[in-house]
Amino acid sequence: MRAFKNDSFLRAIWRQPVVKTPVWMMRQAGRYLPEYRALRQKAGSFMQLCKTPELASEITLQPLARFPLDAAILFSDILTIPDAMGLGLSFKEGEGPIFAHPLRSEHDIARLRVPTPEVDLAYVLDAIRLTQKNLARQVPLIGFCGSPWTLATYMVEGCANKSFPRIQALRQGDPKLLHTLLDVLAKSVSAHLNAQIRAGVNAVMIFDTWGGMLNTADYQIFSLYYVKQVITHLLTQHEGSPIPVILFTKGGGQWLELMAATGCHVLGIDCQTDLNDARLRVGDKVALQGNLDPAILLESPERIRAAVAKTLSAFGKKPGHIFNLGHGVPQQVLPEHVAVLVDAVHELSEKQIPL
Amino acid sequence: MRAFKNDSFLRAIWRQPVVKTPVWMMRQAGRYLPEYRALRQKAGSFMQLCKTPELASEITLQPLARFPLDAAILFSDILTIPDAMGLGLSFKEGEGPIFAHPLRSEHDIARLRVPTPEVDLAYVLDAIRLTQKNLARQVPLIGFCGSPWTLATYMVEGCANKSFPRIQALRQGDPKLLHTLLDVLAKSVSAHLNAQIRAGVNAVMIFDTWGGMLNTADYQIFSLYYVKQVITHLLTQHEGSPIPVILFTKGGGQWLELMAATGCHVLGIDCQTDLNDARLRVGDKVALQGNLDPAILLESPERIRAAVAKTLSAFGKKPGHIFNLGHGVPQQVLPEHVAVLVDAVHELSEKQIPL
Repeated sequence: MRAFKNDSFLRAIWRQPVVKTPVWMMRQAGRYLPEYRALRQKAGSFMQLCKTPELASEITLQPLARFPLDAAILFSDILTIPDAMGLGLSFKEGEGPIFAHPLRSEHDIARLRVPTPEVDLAYVLDAIRLTQKNLARQVPLIGFCGSPWTLATYMVEGCANKSFPRIQALRQGDPKLLHTLLDVLAKSVSAHLNAQIRAGVNAVMIFDTWGGMLNTADYQIFSLYYVKQVITHLLTQHEGSPIPVILFTKGGGQWLELMAATGCHVLGIDCQTDLNDARLRVGDKVALQGNLDPAILLESPERIRAAVAKTLSAFGKKPGHIFNLGHGVPQQVLPEHVAVLVDAVHELSEKQIPL
Repeated sequence: MRAFKNDSFLRAIWRQPVVKTPVWMMRQAGRYLPEYRALRQKAGSFMQLCKTPELASEITLQPLARFPLDAAILFSDILTIPDAMGLGLSFKEGEGPIFAHPLRSEHDIARLRVPTPEVDLAYVLDAIRLTQKNLARQVPLIGFCGSPWTLATYMVEGCANKSFPRIQALRQGDPKLLHTLLDVLAKSVSAHLNAQIRAGVNAVMIFDTWGGMLNTADYQIFSLYYVKQVITHLLTQHEGSPIPVILFTKGGGQWLELMAATGCHVLGIDCQTDLNDARLRVGDKVALQGNLDPAILLESPERIRAAVAKTLSAFGKKPGHIFNLGHGVPQQVLPEHVAVLVDAVHELSEKQIPL
């Protein structure tokens, strides 16, 4: 297997020394880029972008053409799996995802089948192969899925309803049925991640967007247990290279020790968690990815640089840090500010300027 | 000063041994009680209830007539302070608070004045005096306020907008102006809490409902700093009795050590934080209040009892636990289920049944 021109992302994951701290950003390909908005308008819908490998690949590479990022992440969506299960996904401008056929009965859940990624999600795999060809091993490519709990939440609610009435009612009223749903989702997620690995991604990330709404016991029972199931069933290597797993639970800072025990290799850290605390708590078990507040990108270049310095300093000089935001790039951000962030991470980490 | 018939709430706060773990619940007086809904309908508006001492006092005592609770909490609202500052508070059924005059300019902030509680919030103080008379020292009465950051968030947004666009823009665009606002709010909150103490409450609680949205650094700068200012200016005793301070930051489980260093005496613990972890982290510095998931109240009596046993067991046999929910009682809860919870806390803690 050929080496990457820039492998600092993978080196940091395996906690090897790097010259400069690697950096990528959640939603680095997205609405803050005018070239993305132009494609989005041409395509007509978000799902059209996801389902057309040429467009998904082009969007994946857009931020890399602008900034010296250390990793690419496939442009896609965590809800492609429920879409492949027949729920009919669409996105209304400014309103988030909506399912035409949300889960409304025991029968709806009973008839769900694990999708065959090579058939039902072939467009994702084609986008990966095309992206890898175009990337030409400049930097690694990250694939991803949502956690079973997060997918279940969207599928039961039918849309992004942040008070989660239906999934909470299901959890309380019929936990056995919910476990049936989570089980089929865990199998679907591991199958899809394995297909992504075979199609060529160099790392995978599991987004547990809604795990943070659960209490500690339920987080372990309904979310983390199934994340562990997924990780247990993943290919640990492909074509001779180990495939690392990044786990991110939004609002999960209090559960880092539990998350680190799932078998993942990197923990995504959100803005509410102190990076130094996180490192002390999980020790050398895993690398850490994070955790600059995305809102900082709306401030001045000077303040962005200062905030980058502070984040680097919070982690300290040890190996095992992948710089990222605590959540996605906001759409109002100026691309020039992203350039300031990426350059600051590289420059300041190379100089190892203490705060 | 006369003793309470039941002082287990205060004993637990001072980490003295108790026969039974004391219990009260956030929103224990509220919509889940038919007698509350009847009064609410008669009064016509939520603010009418708050502003009529006889009604506020009656509502405060309603749950105590039903359940052997170990503390009462005044029926009121954290937004009475902004209302007293001229923002014009109202509540639309099912939609939460709305201000007729939200803060929209530097001028709006510059002209804010610290209210004089004895004049501008006299109805709260009258409700306290009346409630204490009716309570006849059965159990202690808790007063409360919102944190300066939480009040600022509502006042700048104008309503409960959970994506917080305006306060985030202010924090980034004009932090100095935001500090001006937080400063006047800190003074207003400590003045109002002190007035509540002089009117007779036996403990005060600070609700930092929206602190959890901030990153760790900003939480300290914009929320915790002003909470500390408030606590520093509070009367530490009244008529010979010390007045304890309870601090609750929703989503603040990762900051317990910081919160415990504010000078408060009790930390409210949310459902996302493990009670045993919390105790190990803050040690004997403060008592802990929490943290059963309110959703459990929608389950069966057997499961409520099992969950209570688990929560008691998570804290363990040490003194210093006040049983509560991780947030407020949901309106769909059956009053009979609340009875099950309160009885279970008392029975199981007295027997000290291990899990």
